[in-house]
Order: sequence, then C-alpha cells, then structure tokens
Amino acid sequence: MFKIEYMQRALYLAERGKGFVSPNPLVGCVIVKDGKVIGEGWHKRFGEAHAEVNAVLDAESKGFSVENSDVYVTLEPCSHFGKTPPCANMLAEKKVKRVFIATLDPNPLVAGRGVEILKSAGIEVFHGFLENEAKNLNKFFFYHIKNKLPYVILKLATTLDGFIGDIDGNSKWITNEKSRKKVHELRSEVDAVLVGSGTVQADNPSLTVRLVEGRNPKKVVLDFSGRLNGDYNVFDENCFLVVLKDRLTEEKREFYLKKRVKIVEVENKDIKLVLEALYKNNIASILVEGGSRVAGMFVESGFINELMLFVAPKILGEGKRAFSISKVFKMDNPLELNGEDGFFSFKFRS
Amino acid sequence: MFKIEYMQRALYLAERGKGFVSPNPLVGCVIVKDGKVIGEGWHKRFGEAHAEVNAVLDAESKGFSVENSDVYVTLEPCSHFGKTPPCANMLAEKKVKRVFIATLDPNPLVAGRGVEILKSAGIEVFHGFLENEAKNLNKFFFYHIKNKLPYVILKLATTLDGFIGDIDGNSKWITNEKSRKKVHELRSEVDAVLVGSGTVQADNPSLTVRLVEGRNPKKVVLDFSGRLNGDYNVFDENCFLVVLKDRLTEEKREFYLKKRVKIVEVENKDIKLVLEALYKNNIASILVEGGSRVAGMFVESGFINELMLFVAPKILGEGKRAFSISKVFKMDNPLELNGEDGFFSFKFRS
Repeated sequence: MFKIEYMQRALYLAERGKGFVSPNPLVGCVIVKDGKVIGEGWHKRFGEAHAEVNAVLDAESKGFSVENSDVYVTLEPCSHFGKTPPCANMLAEKKVKRVFIATLDPNPLVAGRGVEILKSAGIEVFHGFLENEAKNLNKFFFYHIKNKLPYVILKLATTLDGFIGDIDGNSKWITNEKSRKKVHELRSEVDAVLVGSGTVQADNPSLTVRLVEGRNPKKVVLDFSGRLNGDYNVFDENCFLVVLKDRLTEEKREFYLKKRVKIVEVENKDIKLVLEALYKNNIASILVEGGSRVAGMFVESGFINELMLFVAPKILGEGKRAFSISKVFKMDNPLELNGEDGFFSFKFRS
Repeated sequence: MFKIEYMQRALYLAERGKGFVSPNPLVGCVIVKDGKVIGEGWHKRFGEAHAEVNAVLDAESKGFSVENSDVYVTLEPCSHFGKTPPCANMLAEKKVKRVFIATLDPNPLVAGRGVEILKSAGIEVFHGFLENEAKNLNKFFFYHIKNKLPYVILKLATTLDGFIGDIDGNSKWITNEKSRKKVHELRSEVDAVLVGSGTVQADNPSLTVRLVEGRNPKKVVLDFSGRLNGDYNVFDENCFLVVLKDRLTEEKREFYLKKRVKIVEVENKDIKLVLEALYKNNIASILVEGGSRVAGMFVESGFINELMLFVAPKILGEGKRAFSISKVFKMDNPLELNGEDGFFSFKFRS
C-alpha cells in the first residue's frame, strides 16, 4: 500500500547530499516490501552512484530481494547513460513492482522517458507525490537544467534604515549570530559564493563555512578591471577570478597561477556573460554576498532568483547603501524585481 | 473531561471583540456540560457584559442550567466591581463545577483574586492553558495595564534600498495590495492611528479602513508646533491633535473646535508625554504610520513595542528616508531596538 511517509523519508534522505552532488540533483530513494522498508539510499556525491542504485544495494546487502517491491524516489529515474547506467533500466531488470515518483525530470527532452522505460517493463508507475517539496528541494537543479545558468541568491544584511555598513564602511556586525549562521549554512549548500573586488579589499573575507558544520563553497571574485593587487584570503585553488579580457597584467596573471586561482575572462561587464562562464565551470548555484556595486549590477541585470534579506533592528542614520546603481528611479517606474512583498514583525517590548 | 479544543474555541470567540472592547481585554468563554457545549460568549463591546456573563446567558436562554458545568475562559474572571458585578462571584453563585483559565490577570494587584473567589466557593480552578496564545491575543491590554501607556506599533513600508518614497516624496504605492490590506486590518484593531503633520500636509490621508471590513480607528496628528493650517481629511470628531502648550493661535483653536477635533496639549516634545496624554484619553494601542520624522522620534524615544516592516522588491536608488533622526551612528554603537533580526526570502525566478 502506498504511504506518503515513505516519500517524506525519501526527501529527507535526498537532503543529505546537499552541497556534494551539484550540478546533479538531490535524490532520495526508499524501497518497501511487505509493508517494511528493506532499502534506503540517496545520491551522495557527484560522480558516484544514484539514489536508486544505493537503495537497491542497501536492500540486497541486507539479504532482501527487491523483486516485487515498491520503490519511492524523489525524482524520475534517469534514462540516459551517464556516469552510471540508467536507473530506469536497472529497476526494470530488478523487476520491482511499482515505482512512486515525486516529480518528473525537469529537462523537457528527458521528462517521461524514465517512466516509459519502467512502464514498458510492466512496472506500475505513479508520480506527483509531494511534488512541490521535491521541486523546492532541487530548485537549483530545476533552474539550471532549464536555463543553462546558475541559480542566483542575493544575500542582503541591512539595518532598519537600509544600510549595509556605517559611514566608515564598517559592517561588523549588522546582523546577529543566528542570521550569520543561516548565511554560513547557505554557503555550505551553494556551489560558490560571489563577491566584488571592493568587498575583497575592504573586508578581506575568507568566505568559508565556520559558524555551522558544512563544506566550504567555491569562491568567485568579480574584478572586471583586474584592479585587485594583493594576497587576499580568498585566493586559493577554490577561487575563480572573473576579469575582462586582456585586463590582467602578466605579473598578476603569474601571481594567480601560483595561487592556483582560476581566471575566467569575459568580453564585457554583462552579468549574463559572467553567469554563463561560471556555469561552464560547473557552478550551478551562487550566493552573491556583496558589496553594493555587485548587488546593484545583479539587480539591474535581473538575474536574481532569490533574495535573502536580513534586517537588524538597528538604525545608523547615514551609512553605506545596499545597492549602488547607475540611476535614480521614480515611484511610478521603479527598478522592480518580479515578486511579492516581504513582511516581518519585530517585537521589542511586551 | 478537560478538552483543549474548548479553550481554542474560547480564544476564537474572544477575537470577535477586536477593535471594540479597548481598553478592556478580549475575552471568550465556553461552557461545557455532559460533554456538550451549552453556552458561548465573548466580550463584545466596551461597557457591555463580560464574556462569562454572555456565555451563562447564552446557556440559560437555551434552557440549560450552568450548575455543575465546566467553564473555559481565556482570562481570569474579574474580581472587582466595575461596569458589571465581578464575574468570579457570578460563577460562584451559579455553582459551576470547574473553571479552566488560559491566563491570569496581568495586573499584579488583581492577579489571583478571581481564582481565590472561585476556590473559596468550592469550585475547582485550573489555569495556564494556551497561555501564550491568550497573552498574545491581549498584547495591547497586557502592556497598557502594566505600563499605563499605549502599546505602540510602528508600520514601515520601504523599498529594498530602504526608502519610503521617491525623490519627489511620492510613496503611492511602494507595497502591494496584500500588504496594504494588512495595514488596514491593523487599523481596524488599534485604538488610534498616528501620523505627523508632514504626512498630513503631503498626503492628506483619511486614515480610515477601506481595503478590508472593519471599524475606523481614531486618528492622532502630531503637530507640536501647531503649523498645520488647513481643512485636512483627518480632522473630525475622531481626531486628536497633539500640540505644544500655547502654540495654537486663537483662530486655529476655533477651527479645531468647530471640527470637533480634540486638542491634546503637551509641555514638550517628549514622546513619553505624548503617550501618557493619549492614554488618559483612552487610547491604549497606537499604529504609527509615519512619516520619517515621527518614525525617527519614536525610535529615538524607545517607545516602540512592535515594528511591522513591509519591504517591496523595488529599488529607487535615491529617495525619501524611512527615519529622520538627529545624529549619525557607527556600527559599534548603533541606535538599537532590543529585538531579533528579521528575515525573509523573496523568490523571483524559478
């Protein structure tokens, strides 16, 4: 009998791959037979076995046969020969009885093929269980597969009066530890964190994950003019330097080479070009952490999928603006991101 | 047998009095006998019967005796002779069996007295059910009873870059209809909406409840210097004009008299003085709607209980600031309201 709890469990398992499977999707799988879970698996790391394979192996290693079993999987089993053989064929060969799928493959060229393979092997297939949850879990994947661009999250930490730092540029710390932990958590889930050259110069951040457990993201430094000149904390083999073509001096190029920083050259200051170049470097999700010029460029480009706004109940009166943009807009035609209002209720006294 | 559902129902009934009972608390009451609800009541309007009385009347009008019944009430039954006799005595006379109370009276001088009256009449009394919900429902009451000051909510509607209007001062409309409805809903629940003279001059608002069903709040205009000069929409018998002592010309005084505007004179520009004066005029909850000078004054005074922040995903680049305050603060010592960070996630593309 179908039970939604098994799909919830599969989604829970899928999450364990966070930070390690990109640009692949997070997938979890639960195999049930005679009302009992006999195998569980998830996609653990890019290039390694898919969730379905891991779940079958788990069952078989415990002495169970998956023949005639029910398979709960959070994404349509794959139908293509990639790093591993297609999971749909594998499940067909194993003669499972039914397959329950949370959501179909987002790639329109592939969607439904896995289901077809299963069905033509006589397996009953059902899909659309916890579909929204499954899509949200893989929002990076669903977006980048369709758009061939990384999913972009802009993080903003401001005071109540909209500043990201005081008049001296000091921003330590606008937000409280809980908020900063949330940012570090997100760093551990995205492929890369992106900052501008101004932020590197001003704060010399390391952009690592420290306040929570988790793996470090790659780092992207936007330095179109190639002005950065110094040995900053971000520069190592996990760093990408985005720079306009032919702007780096030979000396700087050598420095970055020695530091094993990857140089990504773009033709002009178009954010879409930057995103395309990064996507080719297997960066499928980006957390943009500032500063105000970078935030302004991303907003003006329109290439923001999500904005995470942290607002501290503090007021500076004057300070560093959140967005540095090229013009002033009027109320009847503002620079607009297509989304709902945010709302938050702060409680101070009771 | 005690059932939490009856207390939930009592809280639900209590809410029906929103906007009509201040400065009294919202109270709901459910009477249960033989596993059946025999009477329901709530405090409907200031000066009218309390919830317990209405619930008993409801039961009796349907032919039930409340003797030996269980009474669920969201606030400790009163023990003082006010506009009505004490509810605790009434329940004792009616010989109910048990009384379940969500929360005790917030007034330390009175807390527990209602319980005592009930207990000495041999009634079993229990309290502390859904206590947080009950306290939150009556947050205005709990605060003003203890502090003899109105509960103050500051509403702020800003762009992503922290502006409340464009460079021409135009603020129509920063936020979407859903947000504006929420503000109108709140207007219908507070005793008064407060704005500064600048807002009256610039927008000539009516401050009424239009986008949702509900009663109109009173209006408070902060015009310390008595500079307003004109027949604005706010001026009617539900309006309070707060002005420094002896600042109104005889002519203006006559104008306000004719308009039936209530004049509240204060000694100086101290927000606490203003709140004390308004509290004496039976205003126990205030929604501060701007503009930036008023927002600044309230923040500097510290007399803000709650801040409702609406942020629209729009950017102006330059515009009207949310807070006009008298100095600039640094990150190491900002003007701080004692509360948690706000967080929300905007979604734009998927």
